[in-house]
Amino acid sequence: MRIAVDMDEVMADALGEHLLRYNRLFGANLQREALIGFHLVDVIPEEHFRAAIELVHAEDFFADLEVMPGAREVLQRLNAEHEIFITTAAMEVPNSFAAKYKWLQRHFDFISPLNYVFCGAKHIISADYLIDDNPKHFKKFSGEGILFDAPRNQHVIGYRRVKNWHEVEQIFSPGKVDPIRA
Amino acid sequence: MRIAVDMDEVMADALGEHLLRYNRLFGANLQREALIGFHLVDVIPEEHFRAAIELVHAEDFFADLEVMPGAREVLQRLNAEHEIFITTAAMEVPNSFAAKYKWLQRHFDFISPLNYVFCGAKHIISADYLIDDNPKHFKKFSGEGILFDAPRNQHVIGYRRVKNWHEVEQIFSPGKVDPIRA
Repeated sequence: MRIAVDMDEVMADALGEHLLRYNRLFGANLQREALIGFHLVDVIPEEHFRAAIELVHAEDFFADLEVMPGAREVLQRLNAEHEIFITTAAMEVPNSFAAKYKWLQRHFDFISPLNYVFCGAKHIISADYLIDDNPKHFKKFSGEGILFDAPRNQHVIGYRRVKNWHEVEQIFSPGKVDPIRA
Repeated sequence: MRIAVDMDEVMADALGEHLLRYNRLFGANLQREALIGFHLVDVIPEEHFRAAIELVHAEDFFADLEVMPGAREVLQRLNAEHEIFITTAAMEVPNSFAAKYKWLQRHFDFISPLNYVFCGAKHIISADYLIDDNPKHFKKFSGEGILFDAPRNQHVIGYRRVKNWHEVEQIFSPGKVDPIRA
């Protein structure tokens, strides 16, 4: 089975880092829960827009991201049975390339760089499954899109939804032990 | 039709730049004709290997490449009728990302960055055709591989071969005018 996996909000906690940097910059206390159904820019004052977007374009932004709970352990096990590709929409933030590459090597050293795909539109991906938090990538995708739970996609229906990496493992290796408590 | 197009040796004259830099560095006069059936490292003294490979890893290497004759004109016309993706094996030279991105924007501004794919293994690409000078990418590719003529692939058989961008246009828009003489 070939499984394509998105990075931000699936393997890497980009939203957490964005909130951290936003709150630090503006002395705010915006929490993940305030973003149910929304993007960050939907819930902040308009005069913060530009600075909030620039935070993501900082060269070190993608270097500092936390690994999503269970992502490393589950992907390591799935990688033994399946063909795993990392498919990340990097073209919208071109100066993220180097940091994303290094981050993947640091945290997911068991996946070959030959299996990294930095792209824009993801219907160019040929895989049986695509695990992504952004349902726009599923529309023209030829395999099955699996929606990884994130605040902004709470109202999205029509796709199989996984709440965390434990649920991902249940789909692809249903007999395996709980990756979180293992 | 979705057509995936390789960069080096297909859109960009990477071999020409490599020979130029190699000859300048070693006061040599190695020509393209000496490479029929070979890689550069097959025909140079062993003590030059490391320096010759390092040339490609220079940050400005991919910024300076010449556009292959006819590539821009033909791709511009094909882009009006087909879905064109640029699929380049960038993961072997990670510090090429930024230069490749800028080069594409400068010379092929009519192709959206959302249609760039920086990858390693290309069987992850879902397209009807892949135009590439390296036949290794065709083996597990689900569409048809079209071999773009290059010195090192002269002995390769088993794939449709195109000698230049004029022949590419003949395949996809057979009624169109000659791209080189137009």
